[in-house]
Amino acid sequence: MADDPLPSWNDGAPKRAILDFVARVTDADCGDFVAPADRVATFDNDGTLWCEFPLQVQVFFLIDRVRELAIADASIAERQPFKALLDRDLAALHAVGKQGIWELFAATHSGMSDEAFATLARQWLTTARHPELVRRFQDNVYQPQIELLVYLRAHGFRTFIVTGGGIEFVRAIAESHYGVMREQVVGSSDKRRFEIVDGRGQVIKLSELNSFDDREEKPANIALHIGRRPILAFGNSDGDLAMLRYTLTGAGPRLGLLLHHDDEAREFAYDREFHFSPLAEALEKAADYGITLVSMKDDWNRIFGPDTGPAA
Amino acid sequence: MADDPLPSWNDGAPKRAILDFVARVTDADCGDFVAPADRVATFDNDGTLWCEFPLQVQVFFLIDRVRELAIADASIAERQPFKALLDRDLAALHAVGKQGIWELFAATHSGMSDEAFATLARQWLTTARHPELVRRFQDNVYQPQIELLVYLRAHGFRTFIVTGGGIEFVRAIAESHYGVMREQVVGSSDKRRFEIVDGRGQVIKLSELNSFDDREEKPANIALHIGRRPILAFGNSDGDLAMLRYTLTGAGPRLGLLLHHDDEAREFAYDREFHFSPLAEALEKAADYGITLVSMKDDWNRIFGPDTGPAA
Repeated sequence: MADDPLPSWNDGAPKRAILDFVARVTDADCGDFVAPADRVATFDNDGTLWCEFPLQVQVFFLIDRVRELAIADASIAERQPFKALLDRDLAALHAVGKQGIWELFAATHSGMSDEAFATLARQWLTTARHPELVRRFQDNVYQPQIELLVYLRAHGFRTFIVTGGGIEFVRAIAESHYGVMREQVVGSSDKRRFEIVDGRGQVIKLSELNSFDDREEKPANIALHIGRRPILAFGNSDGDLAMLRYTLTGAGPRLGLLLHHDDEAREFAYDREFHFSPLAEALEKAADYGITLVSMKDDWNRIFGPDTGPAA
Repeated sequence: MADDPLPSWNDGAPKRAILDFVARVTDADCGDFVAPADRVATFDNDGTLWCEFPLQVQVFFLIDRVRELAIADASIAERQPFKALLDRDLAALHAVGKQGIWELFAATHSGMSDEAFATLARQWLTTARHPELVRRFQDNVYQPQIELLVYLRAHGFRTFIVTGGGIEFVRAIAESHYGVMREQVVGSSDKRRFEIVDGRGQVIKLSELNSFDDREEKPANIALHIGRRPILAFGNSDGDLAMLRYTLTGAGPRLGLLLHHDDEAREFAYDREFHFSPLAEALEKAADYGITLVSMKDDWNRIFGPDTGPAA
């Protein structure tokens, strides 16, 4: 179909559910009509809008940032938790535990202004490459989802990202790659403090967690940042289940979608065993909760957009 | 001028500064051109977009909510801090201190979903009247500011409210009265928790402060919610000074505006002595910081829009 708004989606139950839903909520003569102000759609990022396997992109960024710190100060490479990360020593990383992980993020993600951090993230994303897909991370956004975001906005939806990733990190690609404005990104955040240094006001990221935007924290942050219950939500892991249930248990027409990574040939196949962000409960209870499962293998005829990177 | 975009503003330095600023940042051939994505304008609410005198509107709401609680449970009227508020006993209110004030807000603003609270706020605003202006509070929005918001949006700006008031309370009027979407309102907030009750997901407002969005917290919350330094900010008190300095100390063209309530005849005249939100430091240092002062008396030929309330 020449005028198919979702050409990378195969004809199947999920695509039909999306087209039917959008047709109903935008038809003023239909009982399911939803006023434009209420057309809020929320998308998880890692594993929903771009590839998160074998590690979330921000973890690769973290590793590269620690490497840079180690160049500036060689003693870092000898100290935990930095040594474990640089050696990719998973056993040692597990041993340093949650506290160690926070230490890694604190050392690399705070103590600077949010603007300085955003510049670091953008610069890194310009060149950093996925170890297996041999493309830049920022090229591993899912083409079917880009089409869906564009399609929803063309029908009066406002599209938001609600991510467990760092809010500044995801904002660094949201506008250029998803057409989602920075203020439409909700994510994990540090506490921050305004201060005036040499006559210039700056907001400094502190090494203290403000919000880890995962699981039950996602609907809580949606309420804080957006102030509206979404009518459509899209996720891919148990970390998105609360957001999906928040969306689906509101009054009126609702659509909740869950991407299943079952395409070993074109991307990766994983769910329950993915340590950093498992998909188990949401998969088992999808039918009970009215969640529409999307199979990457069956429902998408294309995974990624073009490789825009410079020749390696 | 028939095509004057700001008819309620008198010809004077502030109006000329606004028109000149917008002309420069939207002229692609001008060195001061600002890309649409960066055209972010932030407005304080109480005393900047609507009347805050003799008390912020939300304090009147608080009083009415405590009255309702006292009807349901008569013992409340005998207990502090409720008794002090119901008796309008300022000395007793000062005596209960900050802790007492939190107790008042906790009893009336939390323990319910954000959606239930928003309904209460909207219902109250539909009828509640200002004690002296004899109009509904929601009619006491400033007509010159409505014109300014519309004018900025027509020139590609995104307009945000950054308020010390409660985020849900201000959201209850932001879309209908300011044309500002709920997600474009940043404000004070409680902590919140997602829970599923009888199969329905809800976000519950807890009786614990998340952020008091005043002074240095305003730029910190702008960075969190908006992710961009504004290029234009408008305030009216020392609570807005950090936001104004954050705005004015960024690179490129900037405009910071400060409304002075000096119009006893048409509204109220107050600044340093206004206990709940004084204007002192910002007034004294306006020139040093490059802040443009706006005199309500001299710069506005009209204060309020039409009285839309039902006949009393």
